[in-house]
Amino acid sequence: MAEQKRRLRLGVFLQANGHHIAAWRHPGANADLGVSFAQYKELAQKAEAAKFDMIFLADGVAVRENADNTESMSRSGRAVTFEPLTLYSALAAVTEHIGFVATASTTYNEPYHVARKFASLDHISGGRSGWNVVTSASDAEARNFSLEKHVEHGKRYQRAEEFVDVVTKLWDSWEDDSFLRDKASGQFFDPEKLHETNHKGEFFSVRGPLNVARSPQGWPVVVQAGASEPGQELAARTGEVIFTAQQTLEDAQKFYASVKGRMPKYGRRPEQLLVMPGIFPVIGATQAEAEAKYKQLQDLVHPAQGLQMLRNIAPGVDLSKIDLDGPLPDDLPETNGGKSRQALLRGMAARDNLTIRQLFLKVAGARGHFTIVGTPKSIVDTLEQWFVEGGADGFNIMPPYLPGGLDEFIELVLPELRRRGLFRSEYEGRTLRENLGLARPENQFAMARGAALRA
Amino acid sequence: MAEQKRRLRLGVFLQANGHHIAAWRHPGANADLGVSFAQYKELAQKAEAAKFDMIFLADGVAVRENADNTESMSRSGRAVTFEPLTLYSALAAVTEHIGFVATASTTYNEPYHVARKFASLDHISGGRSGWNVVTSASDAEARNFSLEKHVEHGKRYQRAEEFVDVVTKLWDSWEDDSFLRDKASGQFFDPEKLHETNHKGEFFSVRGPLNVARSPQGWPVVVQAGASEPGQELAARTGEVIFTAQQTLEDAQKFYASVKGRMPKYGRRPEQLLVMPGIFPVIGATQAEAEAKYKQLQDLVHPAQGLQMLRNIAPGVDLSKIDLDGPLPDDLPETNGGKSRQALLRGMAARDNLTIRQLFLKVAGARGHFTIVGTPKSIVDTLEQWFVEGGADGFNIMPPYLPGGLDEFIELVLPELRRRGLFRSEYEGRTLRENLGLARPENQFAMARGAALRA
Repeated sequence: MAEQKRRLRLGVFLQANGHHIAAWRHPGANADLGVSFAQYKELAQKAEAAKFDMIFLADGVAVRENADNTESMSRSGRAVTFEPLTLYSALAAVTEHIGFVATASTTYNEPYHVARKFASLDHISGGRSGWNVVTSASDAEARNFSLEKHVEHGKRYQRAEEFVDVVTKLWDSWEDDSFLRDKASGQFFDPEKLHETNHKGEFFSVRGPLNVARSPQGWPVVVQAGASEPGQELAARTGEVIFTAQQTLEDAQKFYASVKGRMPKYGRRPEQLLVMPGIFPVIGATQAEAEAKYKQLQDLVHPAQGLQMLRNIAPGVDLSKIDLDGPLPDDLPETNGGKSRQALLRGMAARDNLTIRQLFLKVAGARGHFTIVGTPKSIVDTLEQWFVEGGADGFNIMPPYLPGGLDEFIELVLPELRRRGLFRSEYEGRTLRENLGLARPENQFAMARGAALRA
Repeated sequence: MAEQKRRLRLGVFLQANGHHIAAWRHPGANADLGVSFAQYKELAQKAEAAKFDMIFLADGVAVRENADNTESMSRSGRAVTFEPLTLYSALAAVTEHIGFVATASTTYNEPYHVARKFASLDHISGGRSGWNVVTSASDAEARNFSLEKHVEHGKRYQRAEEFVDVVTKLWDSWEDDSFLRDKASGQFFDPEKLHETNHKGEFFSVRGPLNVARSPQGWPVVVQAGASEPGQELAARTGEVIFTAQQTLEDAQKFYASVKGRMPKYGRRPEQLLVMPGIFPVIGATQAEAEAKYKQLQDLVHPAQGLQMLRNIAPGVDLSKIDLDGPLPDDLPETNGGKSRQALLRGMAARDNLTIRQLFLKVAGARGHFTIVGTPKSIVDTLEQWFVEGGADGFNIMPPYLPGGLDEFIELVLPELRRRGLFRSEYEGRTLRENLGLARPENQFAMARGAALRA
């Protein structure tokens, strides 16, 4: 019997209104996706018909744009959208196979709420939920939660570590076979199989138990997206999928080896964590067509939005007063904060001799994600190389605009991936874990009880 | 043209597994409702086909049973269920008309999260969401949120008052016509129509704006359920529906007059708040059949559950050691806390000469809600009298068990209500507000801006 070929995993990142900074202005974009459940339903059903593993949504508990720059913000299509958990529950009711990974921050949430909502979504969807664990970094979010400044980075990660542990304990409040529902005896559950959480830590005291039964996946899939040292440690210890932004194969390989290399000390094997870089594909039948498509997108970037991306490069200088098609002035003042970002941008401009407009277009378009402008064949060549040469276990596809960008990926790129045997034609399992090839976690309290009984 | 006859409003309270304390043991009950989305979907579609205004769900952020009494708790069917917002979003995707009222506590939540989730549900459902504003009263909930004791009653209501104000401000972050989505000019929204919240109060500082667009109903319907003095004030000032537990017409009339009488001082008219008592109907073709059905339910109450209802009557005395079919002993010690509850129960037992079993059955069955055991005609007589004589604008139906108890109400009681012209045969509008006859609130910031422009 032939060995099952390793297949790559595909998520699709369906942020309204697409990932290009000017996505909503594209003729192939529906600009009202952020208030249209009907459109999200169509996108989800389309992604499911194409056999994507999962949909991904980022999240923040604030308007994500820089609210102090109304001129730029009012040109962005990203100010409003649905809350991810409510959106996903509704999508779960109208789909059968695709997974739903939602971001929820550990910084402005409580573990009981988070454990409960994701477990509930896991029940509703029949085992298709995943939690992308993040820490929140913005002052805008802090100010919506009665704080002036965001929580400091190190503290945020300590809190995140404890938060994840409390959530997984809550998910294990009930053993899978706790509920007898024996009408004759009147015994609804077996008290031996109920486990109070009784957590007392630095950040949280949570008695439990959770008021949701253990869910179809045991635990919703635990996803992470942090690239910092503490972010990688958290992923190595607890993550099952990690999303990441990598610009070159070499960087991707380094990251892949780094995060997987940290796993053995936590008693975990590398295949228990799937590394999925984001890619921003611009697809043409020919290279020239792809480049024309990219130019069409870039031409839609309003200077106010572009300059917002350069806001830290020249503190106190109003770049909109300067000729955008000329070079950066030589006499820009130095910033106090964000020195490395400033140096990076100035270096880019100097190295490639870029005008101000060329510079902001370079950083604005895909906002730092890996942009591949090419034919289906050249794009698949890249994906295959990353997949085969230790840079990725799969990818998180970031359509430049929606729905057109998703349609093109499905129609043009997926057939080539399938022709090479790199991607599925049918779902393998019923749950997101089964489709991703991730094991269903045993209940930590049941294991402890089992060990005690055997001892 | 004939004047439109005043019609009563009907909600259905679909708590798993029904409202009788032994509901799940009934032969007509599905005991696994708390983990079965398929069953909830069937119930919601059934309630919609019957033209109920809305579904209602209570909520708490803890297992709602007394976790210290495992014997009683393990016989209850209420330990686990879905988180209401995720459940409702999924139900919204498979229904078109019925409203969804979810409870969310102001005690262990943040206004930004609550505003966001309910607005999101309102978008997903096309204007069918309602928020039942409660304060949390249990130590069990406090202990899931890093606190030892629940927050004191007065403080909880001060926090609730401020919480509601912040939430409605957040819902008004965007005017209805903020979003231009003008692809040609690149203007996504009109900055004049965006309103920062900038709330600074005793309990919360929230800058806003909300990252969800103003929703189809403007505000989800604001519901309350508190009967205390501060609860009634909050309802009179901000509530649009109030659920209440009343045992007699006289009490219902008193409550109705009391809460509506508080409205003028807040500049509101009585018809802006609908009073909806809960009723627990046990329905038979004859009175004898109804009583036999009630007895069937009562016979399913396990003594451990019944005695749990009497836990405060005899501190330190193990009543299970005493003959349940004999009277309460005369020499019970007095309790320190909960004196009024103890006196009430002892008074009931003495007045009607009840055995211990009779006493706990009397208080256990519908857990304090108004039980009507009768024929469709006698039940409708009661509802009509309460409705016509100033006791109610409608009712919140609490089926004793599910799905059987809902089926019987739909098949037996609704036709009689319709025959008398008391209940609709078709939905009047698209949104929950339209069906309830409640006005869509204007945006408070747009009104202020309009007034400033006119001045």
